[in-house]
Amino acid sequence: MEKVIGWIGTGVMGAPMAGHLLQAGYSLRVFTRNPEKASALLAQGASWCDSPAKAAEGADVVGVMVGFPEDVEQVFLGEEGILSTVRPGALLIDFTTSSPALARRVAEAAEAKGACALDAPVSGGDVGARNASLSIMVGGDATGFKEALPLLECLGKTRVHQGPPGSGQHTKMVNQIIIASTMISLCEALLYARRSGLDPELVLQSISSGAAASWGLSNLVPRMLRQDYAPGFFVEHFVKDMGIALAESRAMGLHLPGLELAEQLYRNLVELGHAKSGTQALILALEAMNAG
Amino acid sequence: MEKVIGWIGTGVMGAPMAGHLLQAGYSLRVFTRNPEKASALLAQGASWCDSPAKAAEGADVVGVMVGFPEDVEQVFLGEEGILSTVRPGALLIDFTTSSPALARRVAEAAEAKGACALDAPVSGGDVGARNASLSIMVGGDATGFKEALPLLECLGKTRVHQGPPGSGQHTKMVNQIIIASTMISLCEALLYARRSGLDPELVLQSISSGAAASWGLSNLVPRMLRQDYAPGFFVEHFVKDMGIALAESRAMGLHLPGLELAEQLYRNLVELGHAKSGTQALILALEAMNAG
Repeated sequence: MEKVIGWIGTGVMGAPMAGHLLQAGYSLRVFTRNPEKASALLAQGASWCDSPAKAAEGADVVGVMVGFPEDVEQVFLGEEGILSTVRPGALLIDFTTSSPALARRVAEAAEAKGACALDAPVSGGDVGARNASLSIMVGGDATGFKEALPLLECLGKTRVHQGPPGSGQHTKMVNQIIIASTMISLCEALLYARRSGLDPELVLQSISSGAAASWGLSNLVPRMLRQDYAPGFFVEHFVKDMGIALAESRAMGLHLPGLELAEQLYRNLVELGHAKSGTQALILALEAMNAG
Repeated sequence: MEKVIGWIGTGVMGAPMAGHLLQAGYSLRVFTRNPEKASALLAQGASWCDSPAKAAEGADVVGVMVGFPEDVEQVFLGEEGILSTVRPGALLIDFTTSSPALARRVAEAAEAKGACALDAPVSGGDVGARNASLSIMVGGDATGFKEALPLLECLGKTRVHQGPPGSGQHTKMVNQIIIASTMISLCEALLYARRSGLDPELVLQSISSGAAASWGLSNLVPRMLRQDYAPGFFVEHFVKDMGIALAESRAMGLHLPGLELAEQLYRNLVELGHAKSGTQALILALEAMNAG
């Protein structure tokens, strides 16, 4: 008998991910806050549910891809949340980048219902979601991870079990901490190149295959040079992620000055009206700081 | 008739570079502060000179690879410096990473003697010097650059003319500004991973091919994990480079907070006794800051 999957959240990441599961032959029951965003999935054979609770009722697996930790909390633990109806033995997988502490709370609440919850944030962006080439970082019970693997293989090409509940989220925070100060480095370098009269395209020829090489140098600096601030990854989501990483760091007694600086610069960028821009727009915050 | 090259500086970078020129058939006249370090080159047929002035006398080209801007100043402009004997029409190439302002001074002084000086700092480290795979970033006269190309092709695989005198040094500063905050990002990420109970090797499996990917993540974090602080690139040289970049930034009215933070953290690392360690030792400064 084919497995029944409840799916919550069909935004720019969730919709293509759910689509891969439909195409793999799973039976899909969908809830999302804005029903219009589910229409393509419904046309492909998914059925509509009016709440997370209804989508989870009787499902073998429930996948979640929403925006913020508040959404995760409501979708799992709220009045009409997944945990109000989930059946014993079900597998719950949260793909949202969210708080490690919340992931542990959800895992405990699931266990109390005889279910298993995994935190499984992803990296790779909308392109990775569409191409099923995401990196999926999984925290939670090892048996649950094994059970989830056939489904995760439909969504991403890298799938690593990182440890107990919250470990997937912690791993994603490590990823975001690296990106945070790296973005500062790229913007400062571009400002310096321009101010000193260099041609940034020529500079890239000299530096892009050496010790300064990075994904951001190859992928985001060219967008900065074109003044293309369209979102690959939204500023407001990155600010959320850095906020989580800072809160967790402080709770562990860690002082991370680079991360603090990046978060402050990105907050400045939000104040400049760029919450919905791509993270490469950080160059505008550095430019504003150095104007005049 | 074969070209005569004067060569100043036969340290970990300069010795293999000069060796490539000898092998290419150039006639080499060498001066270096510690004569022992020239012995291998002398055994291969280079001749010894007692000062930069003697090495430059009658030479068609003079190459320089020394440590600090003070050394560059002395080697070119000092009492027994290159410019005291250089012949009109000679080509002077400074491969040292040094100050853009000093590069302009040297270029002007050379021009006054009818010679041409290029600033041509490199990246690629001792491995790049040995394999002749350096990236060479060149500032100075375009005709001088063309004249230098056959020689530069013996030393590096990327050779880009970046603009007028000082542009090579500015380009290298862009490279170092990127590395500065990227190093912070890697150290903070590793601290967070450890403190949150993750296995860093597993984390690398999840993050090393995505948006957090960088040369440093692939090449320096594994050394941090092995607690291998042997120098690929010396902390004291990186501190010099950041000091130059900060001085130039301030002179241009640029405030680069990430670079300032990195320079401060590396100064802390020097105070911990790691001037002669590799730049990956920065993790020790972050650990010290977060101890107890």
